[in-house]
Amino acid sequence: MSYFEYIQPIRFEGADSQNELAFKHYDKDRIVLGKRMEDHLRFAACYWHNFVWTGLDPFGGATFERPWFQGGSPMELAKLKADAAFEFFSKLGIPYYCFHDRDVAPEGTTPRESQDNFKRIVDVLGEKQQATGLKLLWGTANLFSHRRFMSGAASNPDPEIFKMAALQVRDALDATLKLGGENYVLWGGREGYESLLNTRLGQELDQLGRFLTMVVDYKHKIGFQGAILIEPKPREPSKHQYDFDTATVYGFLKRYGLENEVKVNIEANHATLSGHSFEHEIATAGALGILGSLDMNRGDPQLGWDTDQFPNNVPETAIALYEVLKAGGLGSGGLNFDAKVRRQSIDAADLFHGHIGGMDVCAQALLVAEKMIVDGRLKQAQDARYAGWDTPAGQDILNGKRSLAELADEVLAKNVDIAPVSGRQEVLENLVNRFCA
Amino acid sequence: MSYFEYIQPIRFEGADSQNELAFKHYDKDRIVLGKRMEDHLRFAACYWHNFVWTGLDPFGGATFERPWFQGGSPMELAKLKADAAFEFFSKLGIPYYCFHDRDVAPEGTTPRESQDNFKRIVDVLGEKQQATGLKLLWGTANLFSHRRFMSGAASNPDPEIFKMAALQVRDALDATLKLGGENYVLWGGREGYESLLNTRLGQELDQLGRFLTMVVDYKHKIGFQGAILIEPKPREPSKHQYDFDTATVYGFLKRYGLENEVKVNIEANHATLSGHSFEHEIATAGALGILGSLDMNRGDPQLGWDTDQFPNNVPETAIALYEVLKAGGLGSGGLNFDAKVRRQSIDAADLFHGHIGGMDVCAQALLVAEKMIVDGRLKQAQDARYAGWDTPAGQDILNGKRSLAELADEVLAKNVDIAPVSGRQEVLENLVNRFCA
Amino acid sequence: MSYFEYIQPIRFEGADSQNELAFKHYDKDRIVLGKRMEDHLRFAACYWHNFVWTGLDPFGGATFERPWFQGGSPMELAKLKADAAFEFFSKLGIPYYCFHDRDVAPEGTTPRESQDNFKRIVDVLGEKQQATGLKLLWGTANLFSHRRFMSGAASNPDPEIFKMAALQVRDALDATLKLGGENYVLWGGREGYESLLNTRLGQELDQLGRFLTMVVDYKHKIGFQGAILIEPKPREPSKHQYDFDTATVYGFLKRYGLENEVKVNIEANHATLSGHSFEHEIATAGALGILGSLDMNRGDPQLGWDTDQFPNNVPETAIALYEVLKAGGLGSGGLNFDAKVRRQSIDAADLFHGHIGGMDVCAQALLVAEKMIVDGRLKQAQDARYAGWDTPAGQDILNGKRSLAELADEVLAKNVDIAPVSGRQEVLENLVNRFCA
Amino acid sequence: MSYFEYIQPIRFEGADSQNELAFKHYDKDRIVLGKRMEDHLRFAACYWHNFVWTGLDPFGGATFERPWFQGGSPMELAKLKADAAFEFFSKLGIPYYCFHDRDVAPEGTTPRESQDNFKRIVDVLGEKQQATGLKLLWGTANLFSHRRFMSGAASNPDPEIFKMAALQVRDALDATLKLGGENYVLWGGREGYESLLNTRLGQELDQLGRFLTMVVDYKHKIGFQGAILIEPKPREPSKHQYDFDTATVYGFLKRYGLENEVKVNIEANHATLSGHSFEHEIATAGALGILGSLDMNRGDPQLGWDTDQFPNNVPETAIALYEVLKAGGLGSGGLNFDAKVRRQSIDAADLFHGHIGGMDVCAQALLVAEKMIVDGRLKQAQDARYAGWDTPAGQDILNGKRSLAELADEVLAKNVDIAPVSGRQEVLENLVNRFCA
Ligand SMILES: [Co+2]
Ligand SMILES: [Co+2]
Ligand SMILES: [Co+2]
Ligand SMILES: [Co+2]
Ligand SMILES: [Co+2]
Ligand SMILES: [Co+2]
Ligand SMILES: [Co+2]
Ligand SMILES: [Co+2]
Repeated sequence: MSYFEYIQPIRFEGADSQNELAFKHYDKDRIVLGKRMEDHLRFAACYWHNFVWTGLDPFGGATFERPWFQGGSPMELAKLKADAAFEFFSKLGIPYYCFHDRDVAPEGTTPRESQDNFKRIVDVLGEKQQATGLKLLWGTANLFSHRRFMSGAASNPDPEIFKMAALQVRDALDATLKLGGENYVLWGGREGYESLLNTRLGQELDQLGRFLTMVVDYKHKIGFQGAILIEPKPREPSKHQYDFDTATVYGFLKRYGLENEVKVNIEANHATLSGHSFEHEIATAGALGILGSLDMNRGDPQLGWDTDQFPNNVPETAIALYEVLKAGGLGSGGLNFDAKVRRQSIDAADLFHGHIGGMDVCAQALLVAEKMIVDGRLKQAQDARYAGWDTPAGQDILNGKRSLAELADEVLAKNVDIAPVSGRQEVLENLVNRFCA
Repeated sequence: MSYFEYIQPIRFEGADSQNELAFKHYDKDRIVLGKRMEDHLRFAACYWHNFVWTGLDPFGGATFERPWFQGGSPMELAKLKADAAFEFFSKLGIPYYCFHDRDVAPEGTTPRESQDNFKRIVDVLGEKQQATGLKLLWGTANLFSHRRFMSGAASNPDPEIFKMAALQVRDALDATLKLGGENYVLWGGREGYESLLNTRLGQELDQLGRFLTMVVDYKHKIGFQGAILIEPKPREPSKHQYDFDTATVYGFLKRYGLENEVKVNIEANHATLSGHSFEHEIATAGALGILGSLDMNRGDPQLGWDTDQFPNNVPETAIALYEVLKAGGLGSGGLNFDAKVRRQSIDAADLFHGHIGGMDVCAQALLVAEKMIVDGRLKQAQDARYAGWDTPAGQDILNGKRSLAELADEVLAKNVDIAPVSGRQEVLENLVNRFCA
Repeated sequence: MSYFEYIQPIRFEGADSQNELAFKHYDKDRIVLGKRMEDHLRFAACYWHNFVWTGLDPFGGATFERPWFQGGSPMELAKLKADAAFEFFSKLGIPYYCFHDRDVAPEGTTPRESQDNFKRIVDVLGEKQQATGLKLLWGTANLFSHRRFMSGAASNPDPEIFKMAALQVRDALDATLKLGGENYVLWGGREGYESLLNTRLGQELDQLGRFLTMVVDYKHKIGFQGAILIEPKPREPSKHQYDFDTATVYGFLKRYGLENEVKVNIEANHATLSGHSFEHEIATAGALGILGSLDMNRGDPQLGWDTDQFPNNVPETAIALYEVLKAGGLGSGGLNFDAKVRRQSIDAADLFHGHIGGMDVCAQALLVAEKMIVDGRLKQAQDARYAGWDTPAGQDILNGKRSLAELADEVLAKNVDIAPVSGRQEVLENLVNRFCA
Repeated sequence: MSYFEYIQPIRFEGADSQNELAFKHYDKDRIVLGKRMEDHLRFAACYWHNFVWTGLDPFGGATFERPWFQGGSPMELAKLKADAAFEFFSKLGIPYYCFHDRDVAPEGTTPRESQDNFKRIVDVLGEKQQATGLKLLWGTANLFSHRRFMSGAASNPDPEIFKMAALQVRDALDATLKLGGENYVLWGGREGYESLLNTRLGQELDQLGRFLTMVVDYKHKIGFQGAILIEPKPREPSKHQYDFDTATVYGFLKRYGLENEVKVNIEANHATLSGHSFEHEIATAGALGILGSLDMNRGDPQLGWDTDQFPNNVPETAIALYEVLKAGGLGSGGLNFDAKVRRQSIDAADLFHGHIGGMDVCAQALLVAEKMIVDGRLKQAQDARYAGWDTPAGQDILNGKRSLAELADEVLAKNVDIAPVSGRQEVLENLVNRFCA
């Protein structure tokens, strides 16, 4: 008996379907701006929230009762979990998945045992990918849950722990390559600090720069073609995480000469925790040339922590996807649901409801973004607003052909004030709402 | 009759003085770590909060009734204001002041008239500096109050307004040079956006990069020896300000090749609004080599806007100054009080109370920081914690002599786990409190 | 020539209209749940943001250039402003408006002159209401802008200022009665504190309780039939405002025995600033029996101050209106746009765009809420979840017929654990999105 | 061998002691305002953070390796834990402790087994109190960790779970009475909601009101003389907790007629999460007559969750204790350290360092607050500011002898404006700092 025995494969049934377990908008073969919807969205489901998290939070224990949580040896349970995971991914009809090394295989009592456990499960995953057609959007290593990493992994005060991290990332990169993974992600949950009093901040940044350089070197050595992605987050669990936001990561990459090697995986909830909108982070990464992939979810605007809820607001999601389209798309990246059902959503079916809702919202949002592009009025309004910069005289300034003194003297020569023009924000917001209706 | 007629010059009277209008801790000639207290702190008072702000806030009008607010022509009032300002600075016994161009001289009806007004008042300021011994810590241009800058100055969609900004900055740099100013600051209050819908984000970053490059070129051309400083702030008045925080500014400087030309002026309240502690911003700037100067003030931890209150917490300020000392001090920078008395503090004497309190708090904090340095236990604890990185083997990793695979294989060869050690944060926090007692 | 000469009256043209200056969804005569859309929504536009605010913010001056801002005596300008306001309200086709006493008439140099100015303009407003059919949703007094109120109005440390507030409120209530106003609002912008150090908190609460009691007594004395409403806000301009949120106001009303006399006017942006969702505040007021009226707008989830933007998210607004419908509607209340166009939206037409967008969003949201009600599945899911409480045994507990010890002993007698059931939040969120599509 | 074998009892050694494991300021017999320091502060240490928490957070597992976490049956481990706890409390020299039922004894497989486990350990605790002289500041029941309470305890949609909660609270009250506990606390971690969509908000408030009434009835029935205290918190783990803050709890108590029966236990970190300062919550509770007890800790102003750090800022803590003294003290309440050492502070000694630092900070703060009281200038400044209200004419207004119209007419008769006076906030803040130096 399977855990999802009573769930039928999820199908597109159109907007009028009353079936809770069907897609109303995610029609994967529908052509959007010349490309299949599935190929735009490149959805992935994650292992951790769906198959590892027990419902535990800082004030309470497990609420989910999954067959793979107990009743066997760790490796037996890991296989049971893989069975359930791939049954879920397949029935959901999602093309990609993502995992941390420790999500799929148990930590052993020694480094070699951990490595061995992981390699054996990677083989299992490979077979399941074969059997189901599932693909790996990205792999990653969990360098934040084990107590040895409590003070950081690459930024640990002890270089021996830095080495432990090197082992896990080396093996996770090997596994990602082997499984045909299209990207590799680093999220530095403990790469930060709790107190400056016990922290050499500058040195820890250098440690991180060195570690990332080693990772990039190793990627090239083994011929991994996918992108290396850093996932920014401002804080939590650490008081301060070094990869605070996209702009911070950009500066870090420039400092260590890695800006052409590494991109960002932007999570919506991490964006809002850092004081930015999701679309801001996407637009910034696009402008800086480091837009890699997205972790789709939402936070709660009244809560100060990472709630990782499924996206459920079409207008907001449409704005984000519009920025993705304007930036030229995600390349090898995709839309990974780093989202979890609520702790009270304890039924197997709830895992489906969360993802169906999220996928439908993204599909609707993509169709809205398509309308924005096709309509063209948003772009026209911007072009009109910046027209002065598109003239030869404007370009000369941007291209460094004019000096401060020249421009200043030009103003004095004319000796007239310049009147501002309306930003017309409300008109544009109304226009966006037209596309959402 | 002067506005501060009844206030006597403020003097150091020691901790037991019951005189509200005396310093209890700021003893400018006291030697701290081999240097006069005054030379460590390099205090500045600002023109804007003290002599320009009327007490107005978004929900109410002026509360301060100053003689220079009405009753004469704009230029007459500007001179009256300069009289009051220098009387205040002198009686306070503060060595430096700071100003925006439009703080000191009125906007005219044409660019030339504005320039002329400003130049005439700069001459007045020069005479007053001569007469009083006051020095200019930094000058700056106000590119955010006039309606022409409502959509940005250097980042404006209209290049004609970019030129208007160029004129003001050119003239403000000239004035700063003429007045012996030791730094020049750019705070980009409107250099950001309200809505991405009407914004070319990438282009605006390029406009800012170009503008700053022009400013740096001009500085060299005229032989200005002071530092060019960007003052980060995450938002307010704009929804998003491009100079979000120190790490963002660093990435921006790297992008445009200006990281050796420009530093940051860090404001405490801007730091906390950006989701960082003040000491974090200082330590980050120190680590990245761009620590320039400080705007001393405090925010309210429950309020989401820039309250610009005077610093009044000695332990917090001590931690900040400890980071300054660890970073090697501020060079040509100083401690400018970008702080304002509350809107209800309408008496002339209140301006003194705010500054006396702020200066005494910083003086106490400096003495605490001195104890931390002299005692040495905080540093020793850090050194012990990172000892592994200080070994040749640790340095080899940091210096790029080891590869990911080598380190990974080393772990497998040893095949043992590494136990973490206590971060001892509470011990260190208790130690800091010892120095504060 | 009128200020809005080139704007034609705004008409409903349906969802396919490409006319920026038309309603696409607000079809006032459409029947929704048995009532005209206009009678559900009872829209009001406000005087202050549209006709008083100059575009000023804490970092910059006026950006709007309106004919009624200068060029005449204060009373001439007040009449010009009234002309423009009623032209705007009429062309917009909004049924109600709202004002503060000082919005419509200038403060004089003495209390009597201020009163006289106000009374003269109230007559003008009355004539304009007659001429246009406009109605007054609510009146209010501005007790926060003048410097005399800098330390509060009813909560002022000086009882003489308390009396000045009494005069304004008495006259504003008289005017509201005279103009047929349907409610009277008190927003206590300065009824709070900046520092506990100079504040008798308990006494100030008593002062507020006394003032409100006087207001209620006066209302009855003059036969005003409308509701008295308090508008909660947690802070800004004050550090702490006593009317923090709906629950706080409820406790305050209970303390002074006013819970049957006073209700709340809930503003969306104030709700989110207080750490609540808008729908939470509505549901709370509904549960406590004090739901009065709504100020429609939105904040920016990344900004810590009151941005008063027009609502523009249909799914979010629909949830709010669903709670209004569940609470039985707003009675004499309505939906007032306490919203302002952005400071850069300087054209006369922008005032229309803001309101048209807001009205259309509310209209769409009302239609979504109607679907939620008609469909019934949301209610059914709740009923199923709480079924145990609807049994006689459940009711006995709620009605006080059972003791702690009885219930405890009952559990011991049964001696079995109770299994939780799924909260099904994702299913319900998906269902809501069905109604939005 | 005991877990704290190498720790000697902590003694007061004075400010110059260099012993990390000694009090520098907490001198329990020192007389402060006529009472022993110990009797003012009534310190308690808690069971949960020190002996139950494993170091686990949402992103990582246990970091603390305590002998009582594994290696025996649950009841054996509970006894080992009690041994360690009382050894710790005794060596620390703290007079009180606090616990949840499930902290001290394991949940059984049935209600009776759980009850039996708890009763047996309560006997153990009673013996240990006898042996050591430790006293119980308050008891409480954990109604938030077990999965059965995932949707609330008293506010659960299932009345059967309400009954389970009744059993635990009945037994915890019995135990508190038996152990001589001086108060009983209810913190409603899950008494709130995640989504309004699945919540009957009004009914849940009624459930809570009913439950609390039952608790109060039971308290009287068994003759428990201590106070019943609600601990407010705005959110976390729930999205919204009904006991949001002190003002909300006050309204709730008034609604259910319990305002003379129940007080609040105010936690510093909960205060700041709710958008208030700690001193605001204390002053509010004092003004409303419901100040009960304090949970001493601190949050991090940049973090949006409950960090429960030890208080370590003397000036801030002094302001809080000054408000306590002004409110007449805490009666049967005390200062419980609801504080935990950081997850990286894994040594046994770290538990001592956290508490020693916290106790010393509170002791210093008490001495500062004493100076504020003795000096009297803060009170004098307030008295001067409100002098008008202390006159017979002011009292007449407060006491309801004057009407709105009378006051309004009085203003018109005088026909003069009233000038505001300075709030002198900076003077008062400087004065506070004098007492801290
Ligand atoms: Co993520
Ligand atoms: Co997340
Ligand atoms: Co500043
Ligand atoms: Co500031
Ligand atoms: Co409002
Ligand atoms: Co507002
Ligand atoms: Co607590
Ligand atoms: Co807490």
